[in-house]
Amino acid sequence: MHVYTEADQPLAHLPGIEHRTLAGGAAGLSHLSVWRQFIASGAATPAHRHDCEEVILVESGEGELVVDGARHAFGPRSTLVIPPNVDHQVVNTGAEALHTVAIFAMSPVRVSLTDGQPLALPWAS
Amino acid sequence: MHVYTEADQPLAHLPGIEHRTLAGGAAGLSHLSVWRQFIASGAATPAHRHDCEEVILVESGEGELVVDGARHAFGPRSTLVIPPNVDHQVVNTGAEALHTVAIFAMSPVRVSLTDGQPLALPWAS
Repeated sequence: MHVYTEADQPLAHLPGIEHRTLAGGAAGLSHLSVWRQFIASGAATPAHRHDCEEVILVESGEGELVVDGARHAFGPRSTLVIPPNVDHQVVNTGAEALHTVAIFAMSPVRVSLTDGQPLALPWAS
Repeated sequence: MHVYTEADQPLAHLPGIEHRTLAGGAAGLSHLSVWRQFIASGAATPAHRHDCEEVILVESGEGELVVDGARHAFGPRSTLVIPPNVDHQVVNTGAEALHTVAIFAMSPVRVSLTDGQPLALPWAS
């Protein structure tokens, strides 16, 4: 199948995060996974890392990308680039939801917490 | 660098297509390239292929994805999945611009026309 309707993809959640996997293993991909997320005001992703390249498109909202402890502010229509195996966290510092598209160079996406323990995600990637 | 402002990325064009590379080799990536494109009403990409997986997010507009000669209609908030080495073309069949985010599992992105000849792109990927 080549065309998927976004509204048909299941919604999943982490605290403060609404998630949809737009494309990944279920579509036959092994080198790409694409997620759309809405992070609530004041919420954040867990601090974590992946062993693949990641790009995050900031469609709207503002926040901070924390990379190895350094904080990088961003606004709407920013692009965040995260190398493999680097601890990072996305924090919504604004008053509105932070709308992101997260893109990974693998599927499924393996996620580890900063202590190296695997993070089991509540969605297929 | 981890944060890029989209408006700072150079605009490029093919006939009927406005393009920005949001992330790719210039950001140090080798396994991801991300492009934002606006395809004018009635316009289309060339028929082409890549030797990597591709995902296209349809942010707004409507059109047809032609894959190996078969036409697949899509509307806004659709996700298009294109396997490696398959000829394809994106056609805007609607009255408004077709806003897409194209995602590739390589950087730079190698593009071939359907006769196998390389297509030189007017942008860095």
